[in-house]
Amino acid sequence: METFSDGVFAIAATLLVLEIGVTARDSQDLGSALLHLWPSYLAYATSFITIGIIWMNHHTCVDTLRRVDRTLLFINLLLLMTVAFLPFPTKLVAQHLNKPGESAAVYAYAATFVVMAVIYNIWWRYARGHRRLIADDVPDTRIRAISRAFDPGPPIYAITFGVAFISPLASVFLTFAIAAFYLPSAALFERGGEPG
Amino acid sequence: METFSDGVFAIAATLLVLEIGVTARDSQDLGSALLHLWPSYLAYATSFITIGIIWMNHHTCVDTLRRVDRTLLFINLLLLMTVAFLPFPTKLVAQHLNKPGESAAVYAYAATFVVMAVIYNIWWRYARGHRRLIADDVPDTRIRAISRAFDPGPPIYAITFGVAFISPLASVFLTFAIAAFYLPSAALFERGGEPG
Amino acid sequence: METFSDGVFAIAATLLVLEIGVTARDSQDLGSALLHLWPSYLAYATSFITIGIIWMNHHTCVDTLRRVDRTLLFINLLLLMTVAFLPFPTKLVAQHLNKPGESAAVYAYAATFVVMAVIYNIWWRYARGHRRLIADDVPDTRIRAISRAFDPGPPIYAITFGVAFISPLASVFLTFAIAAFYLPSAALFERGGEPG
Amino acid sequence: METFSDGVFAIAATLLVLEIGVTARDSQDLGSALLHLWPSYLAYATSFITIGIIWMNHHTCVDTLRRVDRTLLFINLLLLMTVAFLPFPTKLVAQHLNKPGESAAVYAYAATFVVMAVIYNIWWRYARGHRRLIADDVPDTRIRAISRAFDPGPPIYAITFGVAFISPLASVFLTFAIAAFYLPSAALFERGGEPG
Repeated sequence: METFSDGVFAIAATLLVLEIGVTARDSQDLGSALLHLWPSYLAYATSFITIGIIWMNHHTCVDTLRRVDRTLLFINLLLLMTVAFLPFPTKLVAQHLNKPGESAAVYAYAATFVVMAVIYNIWWRYARGHRRLIADDVPDTRIRAISRAFDPGPPIYAITFGVAFISPLASVFLTFAIAAFYLPSAALFERGGEPG
Repeated sequence: METFSDGVFAIAATLLVLEIGVTARDSQDLGSALLHLWPSYLAYATSFITIGIIWMNHHTCVDTLRRVDRTLLFINLLLLMTVAFLPFPTKLVAQHLNKPGESAAVYAYAATFVVMAVIYNIWWRYARGHRRLIADDVPDTRIRAISRAFDPGPPIYAITFGVAFISPLASVFLTFAIAAFYLPSAALFERGGEPG
Repeated sequence: METFSDGVFAIAATLLVLEIGVTARDSQDLGSALLHLWPSYLAYATSFITIGIIWMNHHTCVDTLRRVDRTLLFINLLLLMTVAFLPFPTKLVAQHLNKPGESAAVYAYAATFVVMAVIYNIWWRYARGHRRLIADDVPDTRIRAISRAFDPGPPIYAITFGVAFISPLASVFLTFAIAAFYLPSAALFERGGEPG
Repeated sequence: METFSDGVFAIAATLLVLEIGVTARDSQDLGSALLHLWPSYLAYATSFITIGIIWMNHHTCVDTLRRVDRTLLFINLLLLMTVAFLPFPTKLVAQHLNKPGESAAVYAYAATFVVMAVIYNIWWRYARGHRRLIADDVPDTRIRAISRAFDPGPPIYAITFGVAFISPLASVFLTFAIAAFYLPSAALFERGGEPG
């Protein structure tokens, strides 16, 4: 499960850069064109950091598993399908933020994060339910600690979706702030261990 | 064999997202343009899930092997070449379904699945023939169980190809249904085991 | 050395599909447009199979090494840089074969293969020279057998380059024939072993 | 940490080739158009070699670590985000060197290298500070040797940034020379060891 997952996470994150582009007619004042690309940079950083942290979090969860079953593999595939889809709404935000089409682009972006958070929660709830797939030597306290980091995901991204109705720009900044400040402290807590 | 195969599967699946695109003139009504992209989403999900399941199935098969030989490696390379080709017919379906060129796009899409299923069957038949490459401790019942999951592949995809002559749209929905409902139960049966 | 190399080989092979494309104006007769894309399919298959076989061959060679040194790592990086470059001349052939610009496209394609074969030979000659980096338990007969598979590479691709002056089309078909018939027998000889 | 990092390095390096392109109107004199693409080849080689060497260097550093912590993982993610961004300024240089927009393109290119060098230094300084994350059996002499290879990075790339104000072309050649001549000797010193 992990090699394919690792690959998809790394590739999806790295493909994000392809959404950043200038057109030929920007050549005359390329410096100014590059500054006006700030929505591309914001969307790139937001999506990249989010994918990176989901990936690290995914490893933390898989480390607690004793085995995987058919259902978990299929939910995992749906999760990866959502992660691999992220470069598309990221490109929408990059191209439309502060321009016509802004609202639809940010709705699509926020909705993708909501779907991702929901599938990720289902994935983890399925694995930990009745300790179905959890290794015997993993204490309940650790499972609960991981769950505490997971639970706020769907409501938080639902809020970013709601904020998009008031201000698309604020919604994207909020998503960036979650990636840069909230996720690292929530998802990476108590990590650390052997390198590699 | 597995690292290169894993890489190709993961990359081909993740490149699929690049086929989804809106053009600059969609900006004025981006929301509506995004809804009209449903053939892209359908093609993306169908191809992504199919690649994911073939990949998991590939691991199941490789786990039964004692060794690989030159012929198997070459058949494997042809299989990967077909999988890595899939983003192209997927893009054709995304761009032409419900539009001019629909029939040719879906023929190409269905034909790619037929070729993939045939090469995959040849790959497995070669490996299991006279237990040529099968590890000694793998029981015949397991080999037969895997074969039962493989055998329907070519005829099923031949049917989706045939359906394309009557209704291209129905052919794509059928391919999606196979990926979402048939493949998980057929190919993933009796999986489960150590995570990783 | 191997994880980065594996990644580059797999990604370069899978990116090849991005060179195949139809334009919007092909929609009216997409079926015919797809048939006229045969140079794209030929270039795709030729480059994909060549990269796949170089990758398998690379593993065979690395398995004979006791250690790597700074020089070998740098030559390896140059080899990977050439492999990762291949999607570009492949795209040139796909777009220009049987069209204006055909000669220049095929020169670039053949020249890339010549450079790749030369760097790959330097890589192996450096590693095996005075058994500099060869593991002690690898017999000289095995080293010589690998070298016999390597030596014809540069002259063979020099011939495809020369043929391009007479007939660009024949040069590409010859490169395809080398990938499909010669390389598998030369490079994969005496492989086989543990799966994985 | 390493699988995701390996993936991002390999993918970012291989995506660089996508920046090289000729347009349809170049068909009539494709040979001449290919020669005029030299800025693309220069930018490709410079970025590819730099990423390759950073990647090898990253492995050398990770091998000295006893464990990783939350902070190091987050700095690592920022480093990867910068590496994965490199294809964009590389494309700018490929398209604008010796053409309008040259200065802005090279400023962006050089600035990306400065940021990469600074984040990479912070990453290593954090890891080695008070031997925070360094394995016990790694001698101080080895840590100091690695640090000596790291320290010149930011000032060297600051110079390439400064040179861009005088001559953008000279700045890119200098960045290439650093990748081809300085980095291999500084970063790869005392490497060598088990293959793989």
